[in-house]
Amino acid sequence: MARRVFSRTETSDQPSRRLSKALIPSGMATLLPEAAQRVRLLEQAMFENFIKWGYQEIIPPTFEYFDVLAAGLSSKALETCYKFADWSTGRILVLRPDVTAQIARMVAMGLAGQTLPIRLCYRTTVFRSEPVHAGREREIFQVGAELIGSDTPVMDAEILALLLELLRGLGLEAFKVSLGHVGFYQALLEKSGLSAQGQQQAKMAAAHKDLPKLEAILRAEGIDSKIAHTILETPDRYGREEVLSWGRRVAGNNRALIEPIERLDMVYHLLKQAGFQDHLLIDLGEFRGFEYYDGLVFDVFAEGLGCELGGGGRYNHLIGRFGRDLPSTGFALDVDRLFRARQALVTQEQNDLPPVLVVSSIAQYGVAFKVSQLLRAQGLTVLQEQGATHGAAHRERLRHRARQAGIPAVICLAAKASPQTFVLNATDENSWERSPYLAVHELPSWLHRHVYARS
Amino acid sequence: MARRVFSRTETSDQPSRRLSKALIPSGMATLLPEAAQRVRLLEQAMFENFIKWGYQEIIPPTFEYFDVLAAGLSSKALETCYKFADWSTGRILVLRPDVTAQIARMVAMGLAGQTLPIRLCYRTTVFRSEPVHAGREREIFQVGAELIGSDTPVMDAEILALLLELLRGLGLEAFKVSLGHVGFYQALLEKSGLSAQGQQQAKMAAAHKDLPKLEAILRAEGIDSKIAHTILETPDRYGREEVLSWGRRVAGNNRALIEPIERLDMVYHLLKQAGFQDHLLIDLGEFRGFEYYDGLVFDVFAEGLGCELGGGGRYNHLIGRFGRDLPSTGFALDVDRLFRARQALVTQEQNDLPPVLVVSSIAQYGVAFKVSQLLRAQGLTVLQEQGATHGAAHRERLRHRARQAGIPAVICLAAKASPQTFVLNATDENSWERSPYLAVHELPSWLHRHVYARS
Repeated sequence: MARRVFSRTETSDQPSRRLSKALIPSGMATLLPEAAQRVRLLEQAMFENFIKWGYQEIIPPTFEYFDVLAAGLSSKALETCYKFADWSTGRILVLRPDVTAQIARMVAMGLAGQTLPIRLCYRTTVFRSEPVHAGREREIFQVGAELIGSDTPVMDAEILALLLELLRGLGLEAFKVSLGHVGFYQALLEKSGLSAQGQQQAKMAAAHKDLPKLEAILRAEGIDSKIAHTILETPDRYGREEVLSWGRRVAGNNRALIEPIERLDMVYHLLKQAGFQDHLLIDLGEFRGFEYYDGLVFDVFAEGLGCELGGGGRYNHLIGRFGRDLPSTGFALDVDRLFRARQALVTQEQNDLPPVLVVSSIAQYGVAFKVSQLLRAQGLTVLQEQGATHGAAHRERLRHRARQAGIPAVICLAAKASPQTFVLNATDENSWERSPYLAVHELPSWLHRHVYARS
Repeated sequence: MARRVFSRTETSDQPSRRLSKALIPSGMATLLPEAAQRVRLLEQAMFENFIKWGYQEIIPPTFEYFDVLAAGLSSKALETCYKFADWSTGRILVLRPDVTAQIARMVAMGLAGQTLPIRLCYRTTVFRSEPVHAGREREIFQVGAELIGSDTPVMDAEILALLLELLRGLGLEAFKVSLGHVGFYQALLEKSGLSAQGQQQAKMAAAHKDLPKLEAILRAEGIDSKIAHTILETPDRYGREEVLSWGRRVAGNNRALIEPIERLDMVYHLLKQAGFQDHLLIDLGEFRGFEYYDGLVFDVFAEGLGCELGGGGRYNHLIGRFGRDLPSTGFALDVDRLFRARQALVTQEQNDLPPVLVVSSIAQYGVAFKVSQLLRAQGLTVLQEQGATHGAAHRERLRHRARQAGIPAVICLAAKASPQTFVLNATDENSWERSPYLAVHELPSWLHRHVYARS
């Protein structure tokens, strides 16, 4: 089969793209056959793990009423979501910008049952209305999980162990998960005496790692230099146990500062016991942009990719916004980026046998169909087509068709109404070898010995 | 696990729905865990067949530019598609109302390669902006295939044989595929002398089986009573070979009438040779609403469902509208309806083993994680949670948790840092039996003998 590639429309600088009107909206994903197959294998591998861990799939609707879902969306999601009018009700619809908010809405409505904890997973796309010149994705494939109804270190560890196990199951080795806790920074800002508005601004500046702006905010409100120094230093504190020790020293006797550090410590050690220490980092500057997170948070980074593969964390107050108070944690992975992180690994999956072609006259269609079905039942991919198979000109045409489509063997019926076949073997560049006559049941082993062993 | 059901928001007549503002847009699909799992199994079964037949998956973008895609949309799709503005370009976007048009656009752009024929398949959702009171689905899950670049009876037979094989592979038995050919009726209308506008109106009336309207159109243009009679009679002509004989008599020496009947005859006989005759009907009133079809067309009906499961046909001129002339045929199946047609069959798939619960103190998390992973590697679904396992009160709490969640066995660690386990067996209604101490490697076979054999 012809090689095809993952294709995403980019904001291209090529003159052709700038001169003519684009045919496809920028940033929309089209997955051509090779990419679609790999994404399918990738999703299957992840879903096998989800099932074993007791996570059940849920498929949320593609759009919802904006006024309902907005309660669970971050300010960024509110800004960048696609909205449009529902002509039959006069209300505004929104294309799903975030699955977690939808699941929170469904769980609050009781759709996922009452027995806690609830373990859910999904694979779907989310939509963001990015400006064309930003060149960012507008349709993003995600796989994720949510663990709802329990707020313990063991549940924090479970969602992280599942995430780590998924990534290892995909054959990824060079990745790191950074663990943070939004409560520590929150408590530092509260303790500093900053105004509510100042705290909000400081959080945004810290989330964007904008230290000069953070410093200006602290100076403007005349914050004590010792605590200001700690607030400026925290976003850079990442590593292993030593970061926890530093955090404990900063916390002193302050319960609001001690508790996040203790939670981080406990989850980190649970994950060490489960054998994941090589993939873990503690990062006190890990905030996930705050958004709706209010506890332990985490990000996944792959070496050499320069962007995060996904992340998540605890959002104990999100479901409550939809009317049912339930603590929760979860994660989402970006399938497109996972796919890129795995580029080096996929060749090993590409050993699927190439298709064979069964050719017959139209009069022998029924026999040819039975031959095709027998080979398909043996796990082969079979193309069945109509054509003449005797004579040099017809053989040359078949050879051209086979070469062009990467088909290593053409199976021909011997004579009218006979169950005998012969194989034209295209694996040798120089000859167009013809097999002896074969009974149909002899075909699979002959193909394996003479065609697939060589190709 | 708690039982959950397929849920689609309906236009409900319940007072509660009428009095309060709906939380979810009417007609949007939400697949809760049990339904999502079945849909996944259903898609997997179909994709196994697609692969064996050489059909490669393609994932098209969720929305496109309206001005580009409109060239390939039927008038009904144009009316009912969701459109919205792309603020960054000022152009109109459309949520995919039809996958075939998207694939036609992609193939015309050369995205699927140049080697013909091209065999593609997909599973995705399409969107239709139906009025709320119509109570129809707005988000529809589809699985389909397209066979592009060849116009022969064998290719017509291939797409139908694939469709029939998919349906049989799902365990469906009580279904029929009706075969028609839009060319026969088209030629009848042309031969009658109807004006172009009259022909268009007659086609629409025939597609809606509105015979009184059809009669009025024919009378208004004073069409000869013999051919008018045939035009009125054709939509009711369905059955087996006798319908082909009738068509041949009507056709006489008229090539434009003979050719569609000969094509139907040939494809019907090819499919008989492939062993599908029990599922086939010839139906000269099968038009698929004409839309973009211009050759052999077909519909799939399941007994007792009262609506079609899907259908398709030949659309030789669709890809040309996007700039590359290629004959094609294809089909789409409605996953929601397939799902309903299979309701009776799914119990046999529900024999998945229910999950077991591994419980330990937080101090034994690492050992409990290893036990869980070992059982997962054996194919079991394992929930790992924290809790006390000794003493009557804790045992009663575990029993309640197990009963509530349909968990047949709770696995407890014997003592601190010991690899020994014991199992609390919940399969007996009356006793809460405790196993002897077991080594971790003994667990899988013990569970199979004492728990799963009984539950």
